[in-house]
Amino acid sequence: MKRKNFDIIRLHHAEITVTDLDRAREFYCKGLGFIETESDENHIYLRAIEDANHHCLVLTKGKQASLKHIAYRVSSEEDLDELDQLFTELGVTKKRWVAPGEEKGQGRALRIQDPGGIPVEFFYEMDKAERMLQKFHLQGNSKVKRIDHANCLITNIDELYDWYSNHLGFRTSEYTVNGYEENEHIWAAWMHRKPSVHDLALISEKGPRYHHTGFWMDDAKAILDACDHLAALGYHTHIERSPGRHGTSNAFFVYVRDHDGNRIELYTGDYFTNDPDWEPVKWHLDDPQRATFWGQVPPESWRTEAVPVEDIITGELLPIESVKKLEKKEA
Amino acid sequence: MKRKNFDIIRLHHAEITVTDLDRAREFYCKGLGFIETESDENHIYLRAIEDANHHCLVLTKGKQASLKHIAYRVSSEEDLDELDQLFTELGVTKKRWVAPGEEKGQGRALRIQDPGGIPVEFFYEMDKAERMLQKFHLQGNSKVKRIDHANCLITNIDELYDWYSNHLGFRTSEYTVNGYEENEHIWAAWMHRKPSVHDLALISEKGPRYHHTGFWMDDAKAILDACDHLAALGYHTHIERSPGRHGTSNAFFVYVRDHDGNRIELYTGDYFTNDPDWEPVKWHLDDPQRATFWGQVPPESWRTEAVPVEDIITGELLPIESVKKLEKKEA
Amino acid sequence: MKRKNFDIIRLHHAEITVTDLDRAREFYCKGLGFIETESDENHIYLRAIEDANHHCLVLTKGKQASLKHIAYRVSSEEDLDELDQLFTELGVTKKRWVAPGEEKGQGRALRIQDPGGIPVEFFYEMDKAERMLQKFHLQGNSKVKRIDHANCLITNIDELYDWYSNHLGFRTSEYTVNGYEENEHIWAAWMHRKPSVHDLALISEKGPRYHHTGFWMDDAKAILDACDHLAALGYHTHIERSPGRHGTSNAFFVYVRDHDGNRIELYTGDYFTNDPDWEPVKWHLDDPQRATFWGQVPPESWRTEAVPVEDIITGELLPIESVKKLEKKEA
Amino acid sequence: MKRKNFDIIRLHHAEITVTDLDRAREFYCKGLGFIETESDENHIYLRAIEDANHHCLVLTKGKQASLKHIAYRVSSEEDLDELDQLFTELGVTKKRWVAPGEEKGQGRALRIQDPGGIPVEFFYEMDKAERMLQKFHLQGNSKVKRIDHANCLITNIDELYDWYSNHLGFRTSEYTVNGYEENEHIWAAWMHRKPSVHDLALISEKGPRYHHTGFWMDDAKAILDACDHLAALGYHTHIERSPGRHGTSNAFFVYVRDHDGNRIELYTGDYFTNDPDWEPVKWHLDDPQRATFWGQVPPESWRTEAVPVEDIITGELLPIESVKKLEKKEA
Repeated sequence: MKRKNFDIIRLHHAEITVTDLDRAREFYCKGLGFIETESDENHIYLRAIEDANHHCLVLTKGKQASLKHIAYRVSSEEDLDELDQLFTELGVTKKRWVAPGEEKGQGRALRIQDPGGIPVEFFYEMDKAERMLQKFHLQGNSKVKRIDHANCLITNIDELYDWYSNHLGFRTSEYTVNGYEENEHIWAAWMHRKPSVHDLALISEKGPRYHHTGFWMDDAKAILDACDHLAALGYHTHIERSPGRHGTSNAFFVYVRDHDGNRIELYTGDYFTNDPDWEPVKWHLDDPQRATFWGQVPPESWRTEAVPVEDIITGELLPIESVKKLEKKEA
Repeated sequence: MKRKNFDIIRLHHAEITVTDLDRAREFYCKGLGFIETESDENHIYLRAIEDANHHCLVLTKGKQASLKHIAYRVSSEEDLDELDQLFTELGVTKKRWVAPGEEKGQGRALRIQDPGGIPVEFFYEMDKAERMLQKFHLQGNSKVKRIDHANCLITNIDELYDWYSNHLGFRTSEYTVNGYEENEHIWAAWMHRKPSVHDLALISEKGPRYHHTGFWMDDAKAILDACDHLAALGYHTHIERSPGRHGTSNAFFVYVRDHDGNRIELYTGDYFTNDPDWEPVKWHLDDPQRATFWGQVPPESWRTEAVPVEDIITGELLPIESVKKLEKKEA
Repeated sequence: MKRKNFDIIRLHHAEITVTDLDRAREFYCKGLGFIETESDENHIYLRAIEDANHHCLVLTKGKQASLKHIAYRVSSEEDLDELDQLFTELGVTKKRWVAPGEEKGQGRALRIQDPGGIPVEFFYEMDKAERMLQKFHLQGNSKVKRIDHANCLITNIDELYDWYSNHLGFRTSEYTVNGYEENEHIWAAWMHRKPSVHDLALISEKGPRYHHTGFWMDDAKAILDACDHLAALGYHTHIERSPGRHGTSNAFFVYVRDHDGNRIELYTGDYFTNDPDWEPVKWHLDDPQRATFWGQVPPESWRTEAVPVEDIITGELLPIESVKKLEKKEA
Repeated sequence: MKRKNFDIIRLHHAEITVTDLDRAREFYCKGLGFIETESDENHIYLRAIEDANHHCLVLTKGKQASLKHIAYRVSSEEDLDELDQLFTELGVTKKRWVAPGEEKGQGRALRIQDPGGIPVEFFYEMDKAERMLQKFHLQGNSKVKRIDHANCLITNIDELYDWYSNHLGFRTSEYTVNGYEENEHIWAAWMHRKPSVHDLALISEKGPRYHHTGFWMDDAKAILDACDHLAALGYHTHIERSPGRHGTSNAFFVYVRDHDGNRIELYTGDYFTNDPDWEPVKWHLDDPQRATFWGQVPPESWRTEAVPVEDIITGELLPIESVKKLEKKEA
C-alpha cells in the first residue's frame, strides 16, 4: 500500500445530539460560555473564545444524547481525497462524502465509521468567525478557549491503536495497561496529532460509546470560576466529577454533563508531546493515582455512563458490545 | 451576673494527638509545610507561614488521634481572671490553670471543658518566633498561612450556641437548620470572634468529637498546589475530600487527614463578618448546595468520622453520645 | 480625660467627586464591577460583591476629582455620641452632624476634619442591600469584593499617628521611617481597626490629599482578570501601576484611575494583625523592596499625584501644604 | 530548487554566555528553578520541569553576555542532511557541522548563521533525562516548564521573514507593521513551527542581537510565585519588566535578567495556531496595547538593551548595525 500524503492537524469539532435545543443553548452558552455562531431549527453551531472558525461544537436535535461525529481538520483539500483512497484500501465499509454546507459553515467532508465504530469526519474548509480572544469584556465567567480532545469507549483497542498509529499517523503520549507480565495488555491510549497529550483517547469499555469532549481552559482558576458560575445558575447537579488532577495527562479537570447526559471535560495543563523521541508514559490500571493523581475515585456515573454513537450511513445508534478479549500489549 | 470585661481575639491554636511523632513531622512539615518551632520527646510545636508566635498547632504523642484542646487568645492577662470568674459563675465544673511553660512557649492558661464537652483553653502570652511571610524562598509548595477555625461535633447545640453567644461574645455568621416550620431547629452554627466566617463551627452530630482544624491559604491555586505536592510525596490517600466551594462560608476547601485520622482543612476565600447589623446567613440541612456549592456529596468518611476529645482534668477520652433531642431554633 | 467607650469597626465607605456621572458609572460599574444600589441627579451609590449594605463608594458630581469624606462604621448608635464628646474635648473645630438620609441609605453621622485635614465620617446605621457574593452568574470579570482601606497624604504624621493611636484606638501593622539613627523619624503608618494591615494609611507628602481607596479582591488572578476586562473595554490608559506585590503589607496590587484622576487600588493578600503582642513591621524609606517587593519603581504619576480633600463645613477644597518638619520617630 | 523534505519540530534550546558560572547556577537553578543535568568547567546544561531531554538551556562561560546559538529540533537524522543541502543552495556561507557530543548530550548538529546573523543550530538526537513533571514535591517555587521561543533583533526583516517562511516552513501567527498606507512595512513577526504563537520572534532593531529566551509556565499565578521567590532571594533588581499581558501573542509575562544581562521571559497563555487557514493577527507599532495590552510602556532597558550574538565559525561577537531601510510589508 502506497504511503499516503496527508496531514491531520487536530481534532476540530464534535457534533452531539440533545433533546431540547433551547435548554441546551442555555446550558452551553449561558452556562459554559460557548458562543453561538449560527443556528437553525435543528442545530446550534457553537465556537469557543479562541476560535476563528465557525464551530467547535454542534448541538443537533435528537431523541437522546449521542455522538453524531467527531471531526478532524486536515491541512489541504487534497488530503481528503488521499484519505478517501486510504479508507477504501483499508476496507472501511461505512464511508460517505458530506456535501459542502450540509454541515453549516463547512466545506466538503469525508465521514467514516472507524474500525471501533466511532463516527469520524475529515474536512479542510470552514467559514471564519469573529475571534473573541482579546474581547475580554464580552467573555463571561466560563471561559472555554478551544476544543482539546475526544474520549471514546471502544471494544477493540489493539486494532484501533494500530489503525490510528500506522495509517493515520497518530502518536501516543501516554497509555494504560491492564494485567501483569505475560498477561499485560494495553487498556487505553492517549493519542495525538497536535503536540498535546491527545486529540483522541481510546478506552477499553463497553462500546462503541462516547465518553466526553474535552475543552481547554487557561488554568485551574478558570475551571473553578466556571464551577461557581454553573452552580450559581442552578447547574450544580450537572457538575459530575469534582476538580482534580489526572495522573494520565497531568491535566487539571472538571467534568460536567448537559441535561441529556452528554459529558464535557473542562481541561488544562498538559504538556508538549512532539519531540521525535518521546517515550509514551505508561500507567497501570491498578495505579490509584492514574485517574486522579490526588487519589479520589471518580463517581460511579463517570465510570459507567457514556452515550451511544451514530451510524454515519443510517443515523441509527450502534449496538453496544462488551470489550473483546484483550490481547497482549504491543505499545 | 455582672457583665465581664474581656476580649477573645481569635482561635489561636489546637493541640492534637498522633501516635508516631516522626511520621507526623514528615506529614505536617514536609507535606503540609508547617514550620517546626520546637519539639521534645512528646511534642512538636508547629507554626504557619504568617505566624509571629510560637505555635498554631501542637502534635502530642498519644495512643490514638484525639483533640487535647483548642485555644483562644485573649487581649490581656487580666482577661484570664475575668474568664475564670465567669466560668465559676456559669458552673463550669472542669476547669484548671495551666502553668506558664507547661505548654511550651506559652504563659499561664485557663483550660475548661465547655458545656458541649470540648476542651478549650484561653491564654494571653506566647513567645515570638520568626515570621516567614516574605521569606518566599524558604517556603515550600504547601503554603499554610495561619490557623482559621475549629470544627466540633456536639450533641447540645442549643445550649452551646447560647453559651458562646451570650457569655463569651461569639457572633454568628451563618447557621443551618433542620426540620420545617414549627419543627425547624438549629443544626449547626458558624461562630466567630475575629471578623471572618468562623473561629468555631458547632455541628450536631454524635459527640463530643473533633472534626477538623481549618487553616488559611492564600487562594484556591495555593490549595491545589498543596494537593499536587502531597500526592507527589505519596500522600494521595490522605486527601479525603476533593477541592470544592462550600455553600456555607463560601470558602474554597480541601480536606486531608494525617496517618491517625486527624483532619485538616485547607481553606480560603470567606468574607468580612463584623458589621454590627450582620444578619446570619441561613441554610437548610436539605440544601444540596450547603456542604458543596457545586453539588457533590462529601465522602462517607468525612460525614461520619471524627476524633474523640480529652477530659482536661483526667486526660481520658470522653464518651461519645448521640445528639440530644433538638429544640426549636432560636437563632 | 475620661476613657471613652466606643468601637470603630472598620473603614466602610468613601465619597469622591467625579465631573461626569454617566462616564463614571460606565467606569465603575461596567469596568470595575461595582453594583449600583441607587442614584440621583448628583450621586451614584455603589456597593461591592460582598456588601450587604447600601454603599461602600459614593460618586458625587463635582467640579474636579476630590475626596468628600471617608467613613468608619461604629458598633452602636451611642458610639457616635461618645465620639462627638471626644472630638469636642480634643478640640476638633470642624465637626458637624449629618442628618439621617442626607447621605442616602445612612442614619445620622458625625463628620469631622481630622487634625491632618482629612474629612472623616462616623456612622452606625445603614440600609441593607442585596448581597451578591454567591450570585456568581451575575458577577462580571471585575470582582471587587469589599472596601479595604483609605490612603491619605498628610503633612503632620507624628501628630496624626498619635491621635489615631491614642484617641481612636487604631493599631499599627507596619510603618516606614526616613532618616537614620538620631535623625530617624516616622514617614508613613499602616493603621487598622479591623484585623487586616490597614483601614487607614498615612503617608508624609504634600497634603492634605487623598491618594487612593483600596478594594479587596479574592486573589491575584482576580486582579489580573480585571486588568484584561478594563483593557478590552478601552480603559488601558486607566491602569496606572502594573501588578506587583507590595513590600509593606505584602499585598498584591494594581492601581487604576478614573477619568478625573481618582485612584483605586485593587488589593489582595495581606494578613491577620490583631494578636495583642503584634510588633509593627518596620521599613526604611530607602528600601527598594518597600513599595514593590519585586523592585520596580512606581510611575511618576503614582508618586506625585493625588486629589484634594474637602472642608466638611464649607465644601471648599483645602489648600495643599508641604510636609511639616518631621520629628523623631516614636513608633 | 527542489522542495526539501524535512520537518523542524520546535525551538529546543539556547546556549548563552555568562561570566561567572557559579553565580549563574545560583540564579538559574535556585532562582528560576532550572534543573542541572550536567556541567563541566565551562558549561552548565539545564533542563526545565517538563523536559525528558538533556537540556533546554546551556550556560557557557564567556567574557560577556551573548548568544552562542539557538537550536531547533528536527524530526529525523536525515532532515539534517536535507537542511545542509538547502543551506548550500541558499548560499548560506557560515555553516558547520557540530560533532556528536561537542555539545554534551547531543548528536551531530548543523550550525549556521542565518541571513539576519543569528546563530542557529539544527539537531535530531539528544540524550534523555529524568522528567520532573509529576515530581511536584521536588519542584521549587519557580516552575519553568519548557522553552517556548527565542526573540531576536535583526536589521533585515523582509529578507528574514521570507527566508523562514519560504525555505524553512515557518508560519506566522502575528505581525506588527510600521508606517501607514503605502509606507506601511513589516516591523516584527511572530513565527512558529510548533502550533503556538512562536518559536521565533523577529524584531526590527539594531542587530543582530538577542533579546530574550521565553520559557513556558503553567499560568499567571506560577509567574507571580516566581517573582516572589526571586525577590525573596534578593533578585528583585533582576525583575526588569513587571507582569502584564502582551497584546501581541496574548501571553501573560514577566521579564528577568541574569547578572550579565541575558534576558528570560516567563511566559504563559498563548493559543493554538496551526489551523491551515490561520490569518495572522496584524498590529500597528503605534498601538498602545501592542506591547502591553494593559497599556504600560516597557522600561527603557527592555526597549533598548540586548546581547550580541556569536559568529558560529570564529566565536567572535558580530558587529551591531542599524536597521536597514524597511521595504513595504508583504505579509
